[in-house]
Amino acid sequence: MPTVDPLVAPLGSADAAIAALSVDRLGRQSLQHQIVRQIRQFILAGRLRQGARMPSTRGLAHELGVSRITVTLAYDQLASEGYTEARRGSGMYVCSTIPDEVLKATGKVDARKQPRSFPPRDEPFVPRPHRPFQVGAIDPELFPHATWSRLLARAWRNPVSSLTGEADSFGWRPLRSAIARHLADWRGMDCDSAEIVVTSGTADALDVIAHCVFAAGDTVLVEEPGYAAMRFGLAKNGLNVLPVRVDDEGFDLETAGPRVKAKGAVLTPSRQFPLGATLTLARRLRLLDWVARTGGYLIEDDFDSEYRYRGAPLPALMSLDRNERVIYLGSFSKILSPTLRLGFMVLPMPLLDKVRAYLRLRGVAASLVAQPALAEFMSSGDLAVHIRRTRRLYAQRQEALISAAGMLDGLLELVPSTAGMHLVADLAPGLRKQMTDRVATGLAANAGVIVRPLADYFAGRPDRSALLLGFAGFGEAELTRSVRLLTEALRRQ
Amino acid sequence: MPTVDPLVAPLGSADAAIAALSVDRLGRQSLQHQIVRQIRQFILAGRLRQGARMPSTRGLAHELGVSRITVTLAYDQLASEGYTEARRGSGMYVCSTIPDEVLKATGKVDARKQPRSFPPRDEPFVPRPHRPFQVGAIDPELFPHATWSRLLARAWRNPVSSLTGEADSFGWRPLRSAIARHLADWRGMDCDSAEIVVTSGTADALDVIAHCVFAAGDTVLVEEPGYAAMRFGLAKNGLNVLPVRVDDEGFDLETAGPRVKAKGAVLTPSRQFPLGATLTLARRLRLLDWVARTGGYLIEDDFDSEYRYRGAPLPALMSLDRNERVIYLGSFSKILSPTLRLGFMVLPMPLLDKVRAYLRLRGVAASLVAQPALAEFMSSGDLAVHIRRTRRLYAQRQEALISAAGMLDGLLELVPSTAGMHLVADLAPGLRKQMTDRVATGLAANAGVIVRPLADYFAGRPDRSALLLGFAGFGEAELTRSVRLLTEALRRQ
Repeated sequence: MPTVDPLVAPLGSADAAIAALSVDRLGRQSLQHQIVRQIRQFILAGRLRQGARMPSTRGLAHELGVSRITVTLAYDQLASEGYTEARRGSGMYVCSTIPDEVLKATGKVDARKQPRSFPPRDEPFVPRPHRPFQVGAIDPELFPHATWSRLLARAWRNPVSSLTGEADSFGWRPLRSAIARHLADWRGMDCDSAEIVVTSGTADALDVIAHCVFAAGDTVLVEEPGYAAMRFGLAKNGLNVLPVRVDDEGFDLETAGPRVKAKGAVLTPSRQFPLGATLTLARRLRLLDWVARTGGYLIEDDFDSEYRYRGAPLPALMSLDRNERVIYLGSFSKILSPTLRLGFMVLPMPLLDKVRAYLRLRGVAASLVAQPALAEFMSSGDLAVHIRRTRRLYAQRQEALISAAGMLDGLLELVPSTAGMHLVADLAPGLRKQMTDRVATGLAANAGVIVRPLADYFAGRPDRSALLLGFAGFGEAELTRSVRLLTEALRRQ
Repeated sequence: MPTVDPLVAPLGSADAAIAALSVDRLGRQSLQHQIVRQIRQFILAGRLRQGARMPSTRGLAHELGVSRITVTLAYDQLASEGYTEARRGSGMYVCSTIPDEVLKATGKVDARKQPRSFPPRDEPFVPRPHRPFQVGAIDPELFPHATWSRLLARAWRNPVSSLTGEADSFGWRPLRSAIARHLADWRGMDCDSAEIVVTSGTADALDVIAHCVFAAGDTVLVEEPGYAAMRFGLAKNGLNVLPVRVDDEGFDLETAGPRVKAKGAVLTPSRQFPLGATLTLARRLRLLDWVARTGGYLIEDDFDSEYRYRGAPLPALMSLDRNERVIYLGSFSKILSPTLRLGFMVLPMPLLDKVRAYLRLRGVAASLVAQPALAEFMSSGDLAVHIRRTRRLYAQRQEALISAAGMLDGLLELVPSTAGMHLVADLAPGLRKQMTDRVATGLAANAGVIVRPLADYFAGRPDRSALLLGFAGFGEAELTRSVRLLTEALRRQ
């Protein structure tokens, strides 16, 4: 029998249930929510009877060791949901009008008889503020809503049974044709729509690759620094990930050492992520020769190659391959929106059967809902217009960032880039003596500026101290203002 | 130097390249396609020069060991794509008008100068015919296209940045609220939208469960017979799968033996898939007690529980759980369409943090495109109307199937079912002496009737011989006709 604190009395019939209440200060849920949730369950389970008097806010706050305002807010929410009611001058009571159906928590609930806000609402998800210099962020304002809405409506209006019946596990065929055409136009690639598999993004592609191309326990080389989700995706599927340091010419097979028994490598040849080097032709040929000799595979991750501002891109690594040893990964996350969850792989022909059989068992991850609309958006030329428009804008934004960087007083060293959506800003020697890039990131965050330290992209020990400044998603004035805030934050030290 | 067959001469400049042609009789691609593809690549790579004469169809057919019609069709396709051209009376030549841009396979291709059908088209995906008695097939004709089209357009018309910016990794909040409400209405469950994670389907959910709930090497019990994709999804994520025979009361923990050190079980308590038993209350309580004692988890797969035709459903297993040891899996594949790739998990509160951290690294699989439309479709009541309408229809279809089964002359023994989308039809003793269910399936297929043998659902040795007859997706006349065809196919033996 729990001791009853005099402050909590009189508890009436609510005491036993209330004594079972507990809060977890380390829980993800707010204390208020935890209290609401438990009391709600007690009421629904009949442990708190209809008409029972609730403890006073002061008493319950004391018992749980929380502030009184937390309990007051919790009571307010329970009342607004129809679980409890205040009676003038005598406190809070479990509502006597909760329909029986609701009380039988395991019974069928009749929607018409429920309290208005049943089921109770949780705190909403709060996205991080969309602010400079978030790496990889696109500008949601630029999304072509009107066209997209029209295309979605048109695709789904007509009862085409292929939209809702059995689906091709490789994706909507017209989309795959449009992707083949896009790759021909933008990357000079010659591939057939039959070789293209629509995915729900990198994680989906890596799952397929890990199970159909490599075998559990195989070693795969990745770039250092590189994309953490890539390393995670490979490792979680049972592969052994070996990071190899990149230099100004990109990924160097020599650095990995001649004795390494890796079965392949995952690379960003167009523009190394995050440092920006373009993999040189000599190194491309060496890599292709390596996989041709060893029977390995190269995974070419080409996630944002459309955003090149000057000069012609090098052709895709895949288009140099004559031995069917390259798998190409593309994505619509950067050129349209990550919320579509649409990307694709281009597979060498000999892998198609195996991947199809695998997908038949595993199931498809990519939704068909947007695929016909996207196919139409691509073949009408609208996507090309959208890319050219955003590319022009992103180029201007990069210029605005570089011009604003004059304010930085030499604290950071920015190098313009011919491509991509962020710049790498090295800490100048003076600043580097005072702090690491992680410390600089913390100072920036205190000033309301989001920067990522290069250290975050290393699997091992970082050997370079820099900040990553994403510019693509933000207006020029916002970028300039954020450079000022960043300068003040770093100079204050 | 390959020997040149006299039939192939004169090869002109095409001989070396053509000698490199090969076909793979076991490949997924048709022989014709393989030939087209290779010749196309030779032309694009410059290995077959413009104006070069192609070998005769007869000569090439002989050399490759394929029929002449195959080569003729391949040549026709190459000509129609603009790669080759026939010259009157003197055979086929590589086109001399292919623009330079196309020939430089690695260069940038100008769309305006391409041959009309570049990139070349592949054979389209041909879905299996939508015919009785495909198990799990829904009727694509019933999909609410008009409403769906309108809701998609409305959701995407307005530039809400939360649609294209950073997304909640658990899914679109209003959809999660609508799902919580749906579960309260249809399954008598009391869960909070905060506990609901929108997934792209079973594979996505199993990936999360395998990495956040269990650990690699853990043993998990599954139903025998059961859903093969479930076993595959668990095993591919490193779990050890132990099938346990179900009986008329569903899954029996006793059968697994008292010494089994499993960490949990995956179950279909509402209606065992594929046999149809409802897990009894006594067994539910025993399972809940087991996981409460051992700290294990039960995965409740409730993929089609909306389709119950008579009687009240037992409450969800999750709603009996007082120890947060049950994970509930739901899906929109059966009640709307599998092409949406939308399902959900209901997670016990203590797992939420871990799953959120995991999804941050792994990435989200479920597309956001349909989520606002689906949320609206649910909260407007349209989904409930759709389910009631299809449920009524499916009940009639089951009746039509059972009434047509009178024609079966006792070859199969059908038992009506109060729920689900298929019936189990045991081979009668007389038929069972003559053939297995797999043989019966083959005979049915020859007659154009799709049935699945129960044997397909067993991980181990089948101990029962039956056919699964899906009825939900097909009209009554079609069902009746198919029963007649099936009867004829089986009686002929």
